[in-house]
Amino acid sequence: MSNKEFRTALIQLLVSSNKNENIKRAVEFISIAAKNNAKIISLPECFNSPYGVKYFPEYSEHIPDGETTKALANAAKENKVYLIGGSIPEREDDKLYNTCIVFDPEGNLIAKHRKVHLFDIDIPGKITFKESTNLSPGNQLTIVDTCYGKIGIGICYDIRFAEMAALYQKKGCHMIFYPGAFNLTTGPAHWELLIRSRAVDNQLYVAAVSPARCMDADYKAWGHSSVSNPYGEIVCKAGSGEEVVYADIDMDKLNEIRTNMPYLNQKRADLYEIKEF
Amino acid sequence: MSNKEFRTALIQLLVSSNKNENIKRAVEFISIAAKNNAKIISLPECFNSPYGVKYFPEYSEHIPDGETTKALANAAKENKVYLIGGSIPEREDDKLYNTCIVFDPEGNLIAKHRKVHLFDIDIPGKITFKESTNLSPGNQLTIVDTCYGKIGIGICYDIRFAEMAALYQKKGCHMIFYPGAFNLTTGPAHWELLIRSRAVDNQLYVAAVSPARCMDADYKAWGHSSVSNPYGEIVCKAGSGEEVVYADIDMDKLNEIRTNMPYLNQKRADLYEIKEF
Repeated sequence: MSNKEFRTALIQLLVSSNKNENIKRAVEFISIAAKNNAKIISLPECFNSPYGVKYFPEYSEHIPDGETTKALANAAKENKVYLIGGSIPEREDDKLYNTCIVFDPEGNLIAKHRKVHLFDIDIPGKITFKESTNLSPGNQLTIVDTCYGKIGIGICYDIRFAEMAALYQKKGCHMIFYPGAFNLTTGPAHWELLIRSRAVDNQLYVAAVSPARCMDADYKAWGHSSVSNPYGEIVCKAGSGEEVVYADIDMDKLNEIRTNMPYLNQKRADLYEIKEF
Repeated sequence: MSNKEFRTALIQLLVSSNKNENIKRAVEFISIAAKNNAKIISLPECFNSPYGVKYFPEYSEHIPDGETTKALANAAKENKVYLIGGSIPEREDDKLYNTCIVFDPEGNLIAKHRKVHLFDIDIPGKITFKESTNLSPGNQLTIVDTCYGKIGIGICYDIRFAEMAALYQKKGCHMIFYPGAFNLTTGPAHWELLIRSRAVDNQLYVAAVSPARCMDADYKAWGHSSVSNPYGEIVCKAGSGEEVVYADIDMDKLNEIRTNMPYLNQKRADLYEIKEF
């Protein structure tokens, strides 16, 4: 494969309350995915801790000197892959963040994305969650330059904000990774819709990487980690349990779609524009 | 029903090459929809002419003195409904536009939307179309104030531009109508995805109104006129043939969804913003 084609792997990890075990299993799956020729591998949101505001303080660690950063750096280097480290609860000074760390194939930490949009919703009788109880939001967009293309990073609720994805496209991204844990209410309603529509509106690849569903957990994740191509076709999709799914990414296809339906160049910049501050 | 609830009707007209007949049948369907208690009624894109650049000059007319405007004004008044007149080829001076005219229940012409984004695509072996061959684009967004709520208007390809829908939301719209004729390539790929994603991203109702499919026509329309509620649920959907479909619009439901999942208020205006010029 040339650099215009590469395989990505989405690790739909079954996350337990045992942090060491979570890290160990994540590293094992990274090794399996690399053996299957994946060059960019992503873990899910909150992969070393159960998802829930009450868990974040205990499971949080500093970046880069925490144990999770070290384990992932090592895994990226050993397997010679780009690694999108899902997310972990990060502690800095007296603040907590929901943070994605990204490594290059030499094990260098090349990006850190703190979830920009915190998940605060209340659908009575169905799902109530308030990340802002003890998390602080990130204050910047995150783009990673890889030898395969430019990659934008968002975490879960970030996917709901079309402006963020549009800015990633405008800044040259070919793909966006969203580690994310939708639930049994928002999952069936919007998970695939958002993945496909971000892909189609911006004519790029979108990967969304969920933890596996665990019916004993406080928060029941939807699962169904998926990749959409730039035409809105789902090219790989997990079930709800633990598994790794793979997609072959093709930049020629992306360019062909952008040429045939050139709406990214047909925006009316005289009438509207998304501005970044 | 209070003004917070109202019925809308989407007229999926089978358009022929006989202009007078198209207008006559449109008016008949408006009367049927009104009898079925619809208060806002929409016709499809290009409802008085076959869809194709070669037809636009012959079928075009001036607004408001053309026969189609007069017939629709009369139909709105007689039936006491808001009428979203799909679109017709409009001539002004030496230019042609793809234009939607909107009437209030007294028959007043209250808005005129000229398609802002012209449909120029080329998918080899599937569909090639170039509206810009002889059409000029409109240069403004169009919002209609009704006694039921604020309504944004777009025509077909306009639906591909998320920024336009986001601006309608930002300016207070509760619903967007897109008269539009997707085809047998773009229809199955993106019609429902775009309807649902504009609705979910902006938490408003979206109606898209297609002509019926005619396999003898140069341009074969997808049909499947639909309404999505603000949660992304399709609440009515036509087949591919001629029919009228109805949806009951509920502003209390819209407000409930916006309260439960308040992401419209969670945008990061410190990081990005859609600007209108």
